[in-house]
Amino acid sequence: MSAGDAGGPEQRARALLAEERRSIDNIDAALVNLLAERFRHTQRVGRLKAEHDLPPADPDREEQQIARLRALAVESGLDPVFAERFLRFIVTEVIRHHEQIRENGADGADATA
Amino acid sequence: MSAGDAGGPEQRARALLAEERRSIDNIDAALVNLLAERFRHTQRVGRLKAEHDLPPADPDREEQQIARLRALAVESGLDPVFAERFLRFIVTEVIRHHEQIRENGADGADATA
Repeated sequence: MSAGDAGGPEQRARALLAEERRSIDNIDAALVNLLAERFRHTQRVGRLKAEHDLPPADPDREEQQIARLRALAVESGLDPVFAERFLRFIVTEVIRHHEQIRENGADGADATA
Repeated sequence: MSAGDAGGPEQRARALLAEERRSIDNIDAALVNLLAERFRHTQRVGRLKAEHDLPPADPDREEQQIARLRALAVESGLDPVFAERFLRFIVTEVIRHHEQIRENGADGADATA
């Protein structure tokens, strides 16, 4: 039986691939929703800091976040280097949001959140 | 009452900030776990493709993923441009993983997953 036959190894591989992709799509939907919710919180943080003149940055907070995420990554089998890169990727977007808050008249927005 | 007083506006702002940060930390833990799970699926995809000599890339699949994530982002209030950037950020890591699978003797790994 060649790999191209119905029910052959390639067909089974393609069926397994479709299964994996369905899971990946579900996970991606969850990731998008969680990211949307995370940015709702950081937007509130930006407004709070701007309104109450709280310090714009908090290096201790960011260090704690990185250390915690790296530890959580190791626990769940994710590369901790990637987890750190991921947090920095998100924080870059938060900075952009907080700059928008600042530009809209408030100051003191924070990137760490 | 000055902003520094116990129970003053700054104190209340700091309490609200701590609340927001607790939510952000919970969301980050969920994100790390979901990312770990997503990479388990893409690792399986990489091995499947390498073992069964399936085409390494699938541009149609990637276009569908981007279109779908952008639509989900709009629904949940996330910037669709960011959602697309996020997917590309993840795919870059998947490429790295699949290159490792290839280097370990298999070929035909895919970045799209």
